[in-house]
Amino acid sequence: MHRAAIIQHTQKLISLDEQEQDYFLSLLQEKKLLRKDYLLHEGEHCEHSAFVLSGCLRAYSVDENGVEHILQFAPQNWWITDMYSLLSGKPAHLNIDALEDSEILILSKSNQELLYEKVPKFERYFRILIQNSTVASRQRVLDNLELSAKERFAKFCKSYPSLINSIPQKQIAAYIGVTPEFMSKMKAEYLREM
Amino acid sequence: MHRAAIIQHTQKLISLDEQEQDYFLSLLQEKKLLRKDYLLHEGEHCEHSAFVLSGCLRAYSVDENGVEHILQFAPQNWWITDMYSLLSGKPAHLNIDALEDSEILILSKSNQELLYEKVPKFERYFRILIQNSTVASRQRVLDNLELSAKERFAKFCKSYPSLINSIPQKQIAAYIGVTPEFMSKMKAEYLREM
Repeated sequence: MHRAAIIQHTQKLISLDEQEQDYFLSLLQEKKLLRKDYLLHEGEHCEHSAFVLSGCLRAYSVDENGVEHILQFAPQNWWITDMYSLLSGKPAHLNIDALEDSEILILSKSNQELLYEKVPKFERYFRILIQNSTVASRQRVLDNLELSAKERFAKFCKSYPSLINSIPQKQIAAYIGVTPEFMSKMKAEYLREM
Repeated sequence: MHRAAIIQHTQKLISLDEQEQDYFLSLLQEKKLLRKDYLLHEGEHCEHSAFVLSGCLRAYSVDENGVEHILQFAPQNWWITDMYSLLSGKPAHLNIDALEDSEILILSKSNQELLYEKVPKFERYFRILIQNSTVASRQRVLDNLELSAKERFAKFCKSYPSLINSIPQKQIAAYIGVTPEFMSKMKAEYLREM
C-alpha cells in the first residue's frame, strides 16, 4: 500500500509507533488528479495541504496580463499548499493543479490541528519541513536579486535534475521568470556549454 | 526590564507559566551592537538566532561584483538568523549587521534545542514564526516575478511604513533590487503620485 511512502517520509524526521502511524493515516484522504485537474483555484479558501504520492503538482499565480508565474513544483514526496490562505483563512493567491496524472494524500486544516493536539511531535515534523521550505524560498529571493536568468536556470538544473525532462519547458520558464522563447535560447546555450 | 518584550511577543502565540518564562529568559543572552557591528559574517557557522529589542538589523549577501542584496530587515520584535547555516551546519551565505545601534537577545542553537526538549510548546511558537516567514518569502518570490520595481517599492512602503524613514534609501534599493539612482527616481515619482 503506497501510503507507506508518507510514513517513510515522516519517519525520517520523527519516530512514530504503530498507533501513531495509524492515527496519522486515518486523517489523510486519498485522491487522484488527472493532468490539468485543479486542487485549488485562486480566490477559494485553502483548507488543506497535499502530499504527492506520484505525479507532479504546481502552485502558480496569474498576473493582470494573464501571465502565469510558478512558485513551486511538487513532485513525488513533496507537500504543497497555499500557506498564506491556509494560515490566514483569507482567499488563496495561488492556483494548484496537476502537471501530469497524480495521486495525492490530503490533510485538511482541521485534521492537521487534531494531529498537533493528539501527537504533538508532528509540530516538529512540520516545523522542519517549513524551515526547509523557508530556506529554499529565501535562497530564491536572493537568487532573483543576484543571478542572471541563465545562472538561475543552471541552478534549477542542478537542484531539480529529475524535473528538467519531465516538465514542459514552458513551465520551467514560468518558474525562472523568463519568456518561453528566451528559455529555449538559454537552454540551447546551456547544453552547448556543458 | 525590557526582556518583557520577548515574553509578550511569545505569549501572543503560546501561553507560558512563570517557570517557563524564567527558563526561556535564562537561555537568552543580551547583547548590544553599535551601528555597523556584525552579528554574523558570510562563511562563518551561524550558531544562533537573535531577537531585536531595539534598533534594526539586516541580513544580506554580497555578489561577485561586490553589490549588496538585502534579504531581510529585522526591526524591533523581529527574529533574524541565517536559517540555512543554522539548520545545515554549513557556512553562512549571509552577513548580518546592525543598521543602527541595537539591543538584541541571542538564542544559541544548543539552547534552542534544550528549549524544545524542556518546553515542547516552543515547537509551536517557532513553527508559527517560521510559517509567517515562509509566507512572506514566497510572496516576495512571486512579487519579483510579477511586479515592476515601482510596484515592489509601493508594496514595501505599505508593508513597512516604519522603515521608509528610518532606513537609508540605499538599503531599501538593495532590498527591492534596483540601483540607488533608480531608487531615487522611483521614490520621487511615487511621492508625486500619492
